[in-house]
Amino acid sequence: MRQMRIVGIDPGLQRTGYAVLRASAERPTDTPSLAEAGVFRFKSSLPVHDRLVELEQDLTALLARSQAQVVCVEKLYAHYAHPTTAIIMGHARGVILLVAARMGLRLIELPATEVKRAVTGNGHASKQQVQSTVQALLALPAPPSPTDVSDAIAIALTGIQRATPVPVSSGHA
Amino acid sequence: MRQMRIVGIDPGLQRTGYAVLRASAERPTDTPSLAEAGVFRFKSSLPVHDRLVELEQDLTALLARSQAQVVCVEKLYAHYAHPTTAIIMGHARGVILLVAARMGLRLIELPATEVKRAVTGNGHASKQQVQSTVQALLALPAPPSPTDVSDAIAIALTGIQRATPVPVSSGHA
Repeated sequence: MRQMRIVGIDPGLQRTGYAVLRASAERPTDTPSLAEAGVFRFKSSLPVHDRLVELEQDLTALLARSQAQVVCVEKLYAHYAHPTTAIIMGHARGVILLVAARMGLRLIELPATEVKRAVTGNGHASKQQVQSTVQALLALPAPPSPTDVSDAIAIALTGIQRATPVPVSSGHA
Repeated sequence: MRQMRIVGIDPGLQRTGYAVLRASAERPTDTPSLAEAGVFRFKSSLPVHDRLVELEQDLTALLARSQAQVVCVEKLYAHYAHPTTAIIMGHARGVILLVAARMGLRLIELPATEVKRAVTGNGHASKQQVQSTVQALLALPAPPSPTDVSDAIAIALTGIQRATPVPVSSGHA
Protein backbone atom coordinates (compact mmCIF):
# COMPACT_ATOMS: atom_id res chain seq x y z
CA MET A 1 0.00 0.00 0.00
CA ARG A 2 1.29 3.42 -0.95
CA GLN A 3 2.22 5.36 2.16
CA MET A 4 2.81 9.03 2.65
CA ARG A 5 5.22 10.21 5.33
CA ILE A 6 4.42 13.60 6.75
CA VAL A 7 6.60 15.43 9.26
CA GLY A 8 5.22 18.12 11.58
CA ILE A 9 7.65 20.54 13.20
CA ASP A 10 7.20 22.96 16.09
CA PRO A 11 10.27 25.25 15.83
CA GLY A 12 12.24 26.62 18.76
CA LEU A 13 15.84 27.16 19.80
CA GLN A 14 15.45 25.58 23.22
CA ARG A 15 13.44 22.64 21.91
CA THR A 16 12.16 21.86 18.41
CA GLY A 17 9.34 19.30 18.51
CA TYR A 18 8.88 16.89 15.61
CA ALA A 19 6.53 14.08 14.62
CA VAL A 20 6.56 11.68 11.67
CA LEU A 21 3.16 10.31 10.64
CA ARG A 22 2.42 7.58 8.11
CA ALA A 23 -0.80 7.99 6.17
CA SER A 24 -2.31 5.88 3.42
CA ALA A 25 -2.21 7.76 0.12
CA GLU A 26 -5.08 5.61 -1.21
CA ARG A 27 -7.23 5.77 1.89
CA PRO A 28 -6.56 9.22 3.31
CA THR A 29 -9.44 8.99 5.78
CA ASP A 30 -7.76 6.09 7.62
CA THR A 31 -6.23 7.10 10.94
CA PRO A 32 -2.53 7.81 10.37
CA SER A 33 0.06 6.05 12.49
CA LEU A 34 2.85 7.68 14.46
CA ALA A 35 6.23 6.49 13.18
CA GLU A 36 8.46 8.66 15.35
CA ALA A 37 8.22 11.75 17.52
CA GLY A 38 10.43 13.68 19.90
CA VAL A 39 12.32 16.89 20.47
CA PHE A 40 15.67 18.23 19.40
CA ARG A 41 17.06 19.86 22.54
CA PHE A 42 19.63 22.63 22.44
CA LYS A 43 21.84 23.51 25.39
CA SER A 44 21.07 26.96 26.71
CA SER A 45 24.83 27.46 27.12
CA LEU A 46 25.31 27.24 23.32
CA PRO A 47 25.21 30.46 21.28
CA VAL A 48 22.32 30.70 18.81
CA HIS A 49 24.53 30.06 15.76
CA ASP A 50 25.76 26.75 17.17
CA ARG A 51 22.19 25.68 17.96
CA LEU A 52 21.26 26.43 14.35
CA VAL A 53 24.07 24.16 13.14
CA GLU A 54 22.77 21.36 15.41
CA LEU A 55 19.20 21.97 14.23
CA GLU A 56 20.32 21.69 10.59
CA GLN A 57 22.11 18.40 11.29
CA ASP A 58 19.32 16.89 13.44
CA LEU A 59 16.58 17.82 10.98
CA THR A 60 18.49 16.69 7.89
CA ALA A 61 19.05 13.30 9.57
CA LEU A 62 15.38 13.02 10.60
CA LEU A 63 14.04 13.85 7.13
CA ALA A 64 16.44 11.39 5.52
CA ARG A 65 15.79 8.44 7.85
CA SER A 66 12.01 8.98 7.87
CA GLN A 67 11.89 9.26 4.06
CA ALA A 68 9.62 12.26 4.50
CA GLN A 69 7.77 13.61 1.49
CA VAL A 70 5.95 16.49 3.16
CA VAL A 71 7.06 18.90 5.91
CA CYS A 72 4.48 20.94 7.82
CA VAL A 73 5.18 24.01 9.95
CA GLU A 74 3.00 26.71 11.41
CA LYS A 75 2.54 29.92 9.48
CA LEU A 76 3.91 33.15 10.86
CA TYR A 77 1.83 35.52 12.92
CA ALA A 78 1.73 39.23 12.33
CA HIS A 79 1.47 39.88 16.07
CA TYR A 80 3.13 38.17 18.95
CA ALA A 81 3.07 38.82 22.65
CA HIS A 82 6.84 38.29 22.76
CA PRO A 83 8.47 39.80 19.66
CA THR A 84 12.02 38.79 20.60
CA THR A 85 10.97 35.17 21.06
CA ALA A 86 9.22 35.33 17.69
CA ILE A 87 12.33 36.67 15.96
CA ILE A 88 14.50 33.97 17.55
CA MET A 89 11.87 31.45 16.46
CA GLY A 90 12.22 32.98 12.99
CA HIS A 91 15.90 31.95 13.00
CA ALA A 92 14.97 28.31 13.70
CA ARG A 93 12.12 28.43 11.20
CA GLY A 94 14.47 29.84 8.54
CA VAL A 95 16.81 26.88 8.94
CA ILE A 96 13.87 24.43 8.87
CA LEU A 97 12.48 25.90 5.62
CA LEU A 98 15.99 25.90 4.15
CA VAL A 99 16.61 22.22 4.95
CA ALA A 100 13.20 21.09 3.64
CA ALA A 101 13.48 23.15 0.44
CA ARG A 102 17.03 21.98 -0.19
CA MET A 103 15.85 18.36 0.01
CA GLY A 104 13.08 19.12 -2.49
CA LEU A 105 10.29 18.27 -0.04
CA ARG A 106 6.81 19.69 -0.22
CA LEU A 107 6.24 22.38 2.40
CA ILE A 108 2.85 23.04 3.96
CA GLU A 109 2.46 26.13 6.14
CA LEU A 110 -0.57 26.17 8.42
CA PRO A 111 -2.08 28.91 10.60
CA ALA A 112 -1.99 27.93 14.29
CA THR A 113 -5.73 28.43 14.64
CA GLU A 114 -6.36 26.06 11.70
CA VAL A 115 -4.21 23.39 13.40
CA LYS A 116 -6.07 23.71 16.71
CA ARG A 117 -9.45 23.75 15.02
CA ALA A 118 -8.65 20.74 12.78
CA VAL A 119 -7.52 18.65 15.74
CA THR A 120 -9.76 19.75 18.63
CA GLY A 121 -12.62 21.60 16.89
CA ASN A 122 -11.61 24.79 18.72
CA GLY A 123 -9.24 27.31 17.11
CA HIS A 124 -8.24 28.59 20.54
CA ALA A 125 -7.69 25.25 22.29
CA SER A 126 -4.99 25.10 24.97
CA LYS A 127 -1.79 23.10 24.53
CA GLN A 128 -3.19 20.60 27.05
CA GLN A 129 -6.37 20.16 25.02
CA VAL A 130 -4.28 19.57 21.89
CA GLN A 131 -2.18 17.08 23.86
CA SER A 132 -5.11 14.97 25.09
CA THR A 133 -6.95 15.11 21.75
CA VAL A 134 -3.84 13.97 19.88
CA GLN A 135 -3.41 11.11 22.35
CA ALA A 136 -7.01 10.00 21.76
CA LEU A 137 -6.89 10.39 17.95
CA LEU A 138 -3.77 8.25 17.59
CA ALA A 139 -4.72 5.89 20.47
CA LEU A 140 -1.41 6.53 22.21
CA PRO A 141 -0.75 4.90 25.60
CA ALA A 142 0.23 8.26 27.16
CA PRO A 143 -0.10 11.96 26.29
CA PRO A 144 2.78 13.02 24.00
CA SER A 145 5.14 15.11 26.09
CA PRO A 146 6.47 17.83 26.17
CA THR A 147 3.78 19.84 24.39
CA ASP A 148 6.30 20.63 21.61
CA VAL A 149 5.73 17.00 20.57
CA SER A 150 1.92 17.08 20.74
CA ASP A 151 1.95 20.38 18.83
CA ALA A 152 4.17 18.81 16.15
CA ILE A 153 1.77 15.83 15.89
CA ALA A 154 -1.21 18.21 15.56
CA ILE A 155 0.60 20.13 12.80
CA ALA A 156 1.33 16.90 10.90
CA LEU A 157 -2.28 15.66 11.34
CA THR A 158 -3.59 18.93 9.89
CA GLY A 159 -1.06 18.78 7.07
CA ILE A 160 -2.35 15.34 6.08
CA GLN A 161 -5.79 16.83 5.49
CA ARG A 162 -4.22 19.38 3.15
CA ALA A 163 -1.92 16.90 1.41
CA THR A 164 -4.53 14.19 0.85
CA PRO A 165 -7.86 15.86 0.16
CA VAL A 166 -10.73 13.40 0.14
CA PRO A 167 -11.68 12.99 -3.56
CA VAL A 168 -15.00 14.60 -4.40
CA SER A 169 -16.24 11.32 -5.93
CA SER A 170 -15.99 9.51 -2.60
CA GLY A 171 -18.74 11.67 -1.13
CA HIS A 172 -19.24 12.38 2.53
CA ALA A 173 -21.76 9.68 3.44
CA MET B 1 51.56 42.12 5.39
CA ARG B 2 49.01 40.09 7.32
CA GLN B 3 45.52 40.97 6.22
CA MET B 4 42.22 40.37 7.86
CA ARG B 5 39.11 39.97 5.74
CA ILE B 6 35.92 41.07 7.43
CA VAL B 7 32.46 40.67 5.94
CA GLY B 8 29.51 42.84 6.98
CA ILE B 9 25.99 41.64 6.22
CA ASP B 10 22.66 43.48 6.27
CA PRO B 11 20.08 40.64 6.14
CA GLY B 12 16.82 40.72 4.25
CA LEU B 13 14.72 38.50 2.02
CA GLN B 14 14.23 41.08 -0.72
CA ARG B 15 17.85 42.19 -0.66
CA THR B 16 20.76 41.16 1.57
CA GLY B 17 23.57 43.71 1.49
CA TYR B 18 27.17 42.59 1.92
CA ALA B 19 30.63 44.15 2.05
CA VAL B 20 34.09 42.62 2.27
CA LEU B 21 36.77 44.80 3.85
CA ARG B 22 40.50 44.16 4.05
CA ALA B 23 42.23 45.46 7.16
CA SER B 24 45.82 45.22 8.27
CA ALA B 25 46.13 42.92 11.26
CA GLU B 26 49.39 44.62 12.28
CA ARG B 27 48.23 48.19 11.73
CA PRO B 28 44.57 48.12 12.70
CA THR B 29 44.29 51.92 12.67
CA ASP B 30 45.05 52.05 8.92
CA THR B 31 41.98 52.72 6.81
CA PRO B 32 40.61 49.39 5.59
CA SER B 33 40.04 48.88 1.88
CA LEU B 34 36.84 47.70 0.22
CA ALA B 35 37.43 44.42 -1.59
CA GLU B 36 33.88 43.74 -2.73
CA ALA B 37 30.35 44.88 -1.96
CA GLY B 38 26.89 44.37 -3.36
CA VAL B 39 23.48 42.87 -2.74
CA PHE B 40 21.98 39.44 -3.12
CA ARG B 41 18.59 40.07 -4.69
CA PHE B 42 15.69 37.67 -4.33
CA LYS B 43 12.74 37.65 -6.69
CA SER B 44 9.55 38.64 -4.94
CA SER B 45 7.79 35.90 -6.92
CA LEU B 46 9.87 33.22 -5.11
CA PRO B 47 8.47 31.69 -1.93
CA VAL B 48 10.52 32.40 1.22
CA HIS B 49 11.99 28.88 1.40
CA ASP B 50 13.44 29.17 -2.12
CA ARG B 51 14.94 32.57 -1.29
CA LEU B 52 16.60 31.01 1.77
CA VAL B 53 18.17 28.32 -0.45
CA GLU B 54 19.53 31.07 -2.77
CA LEU B 55 20.80 33.06 0.22
CA GLU B 56 22.64 30.00 1.54
CA GLN B 57 24.29 29.42 -1.84
CA ASP B 58 25.16 33.09 -2.49
CA LEU B 59 26.60 33.63 0.98
CA THR B 60 28.57 30.37 1.04
CA ALA B 61 30.15 31.36 -2.31
CA LEU B 62 30.94 34.91 -1.08
CA LEU B 63 32.57 33.74 2.16
CA ALA B 64 34.63 31.15 0.28
CA ARG B 65 35.88 33.44 -2.51
CA SER B 66 36.60 36.34 -0.15
CA GLN B 67 38.49 34.08 2.29
CA ALA B 68 36.59 35.77 5.10
CA GLN B 69 37.74 35.23 8.67
CA VAL B 70 35.14 37.32 10.44
CA VAL B 71 31.42 37.84 9.73
CA CYS B 72 29.57 40.80 11.27
CA VAL B 73 25.79 41.19 11.54
CA GLU B 74 23.56 43.47 13.53
CA LYS B 75 22.23 42.28 16.87
CA LEU B 76 18.55 41.65 17.29
CA TYR B 77 16.23 44.27 18.67
CA ALA B 78 13.67 43.56 21.34
CA HIS B 79 11.20 45.95 19.71
CA TYR B 80 10.47 46.63 16.11
CA ALA B 81 8.00 48.88 14.40
CA HIS B 82 7.18 46.06 11.97
CA PRO B 83 7.15 42.71 13.82
CA THR B 84 6.37 40.63 10.71
CA THR B 85 9.28 42.15 8.80
CA ALA B 86 11.51 41.44 11.80
CA ILE B 87 10.44 37.79 11.94
CA ILE B 88 11.03 37.37 8.19
CA MET B 89 14.41 39.06 8.71
CA GLY B 90 14.98 36.48 11.47
CA HIS B 91 14.64 33.74 8.83
CA ALA B 92 17.39 35.30 6.70
CA ARG B 93 19.54 36.01 9.75
CA GLY B 94 19.15 32.37 10.89
CA VAL B 95 20.53 31.12 7.57
CA ILE B 96 23.39 33.67 7.70
CA LEU B 97 24.42 32.61 11.23
CA LEU B 98 24.16 28.95 10.18
CA VAL B 99 26.42 29.39 7.13
CA ALA B 100 29.05 31.39 9.04
CA ALA B 101 29.08 28.98 12.01
CA ARG B 102 29.26 25.94 9.73
CA MET B 103 32.35 27.42 8.03
CA GLY B 104 33.95 27.98 11.45
CA LEU B 105 34.13 31.76 11.02
CA ARG B 106 34.20 34.22 13.88
CA LEU B 107 30.84 35.95 14.33
CA ILE B 108 30.54 39.48 15.68
CA GLU B 109 27.05 40.75 16.52
CA LEU B 110 26.71 44.49 16.86
CA PRO B 111 23.83 46.68 18.10
CA ALA B 112 22.58 48.99 15.32
CA THR B 113 23.15 52.08 17.47
CA GLU B 114 26.80 51.04 18.04
CA VAL B 115 27.30 50.71 14.28
CA LYS B 116 25.82 54.15 13.56
CA ARG B 117 27.75 55.76 16.42
CA ALA B 118 31.06 54.13 15.42
CA VAL B 119 30.74 55.31 11.82
CA THR B 120 29.01 58.69 12.06
CA GLY B 121 29.37 59.66 15.73
CA ASN B 122 25.59 59.58 16.09
CA GLY B 123 23.76 56.45 17.27
CA HIS B 124 20.59 57.63 15.55
CA ALA B 125 22.07 58.66 12.19
CA SER B 126 19.91 58.19 9.09
CA LYS B 127 20.73 55.67 6.37
CA GLN B 128 21.75 58.60 4.14
CA GLN B 129 24.18 59.90 6.78
CA VAL B 130 25.69 56.42 7.09
CA GLN B 131 25.94 56.27 3.29
CA SER B 132 27.81 59.58 2.88
CA THR B 133 30.09 58.94 5.89
CA VAL B 134 31.02 55.50 4.59
CA GLN B 135 31.80 57.02 1.18
CA ALA B 136 34.09 59.60 2.78
CA LEU B 137 35.81 57.14 5.16
CA LEU B 138 36.73 54.73 2.37
CA ALA B 139 37.29 57.51 -0.22
CA LEU B 140 34.85 55.91 -2.62
CA PRO B 141 34.09 57.66 -5.93
CA ALA B 142 30.31 57.44 -5.31
CA PRO B 143 27.99 56.74 -2.36
CA PRO B 144 27.52 52.96 -1.98
CA SER B 145 24.03 52.13 -3.18
CA PRO B 146 21.46 50.85 -2.28
CA THR B 147 21.66 51.60 1.45
CA ASP B 148 21.78 47.83 2.15
CA VAL B 149 25.36 48.08 0.84
CA SER B 150 26.36 51.17 2.86
CA ASP B 151 24.82 49.57 5.97
CA ALA B 152 26.82 46.39 5.34
CA ILE B 153 30.02 48.44 4.97
CA ALA B 154 29.25 50.29 8.23
CA ILE B 155 28.70 46.96 10.02
CA ALA B 156 32.04 45.61 8.74
CA LEU B 157 33.87 48.85 9.69
CA THR B 158 32.50 48.61 13.23
CA GLY B 159 33.37 44.92 13.39
CA ILE B 160 37.00 45.72 12.55
CA GLN B 161 37.21 47.90 15.67
CA ARG B 162 35.99 44.95 17.74
CA ALA B 163 38.18 42.39 16.00
CA THR B 164 41.40 44.44 16.09
CA PRO B 165 41.45 46.50 19.28
CA VAL B 166 44.19 49.13 19.28
CA PRO B 167 46.88 47.84 21.69
CA VAL B 168 47.03 49.90 24.89
CA SER B 169 50.82 50.38 24.43
CA SER B 170 50.30 52.25 21.14
CA GLY B 171 48.74 55.20 22.99
CA HIS B 172 46.42 57.74 21.48
CA ALA B 173 48.89 60.54 20.68
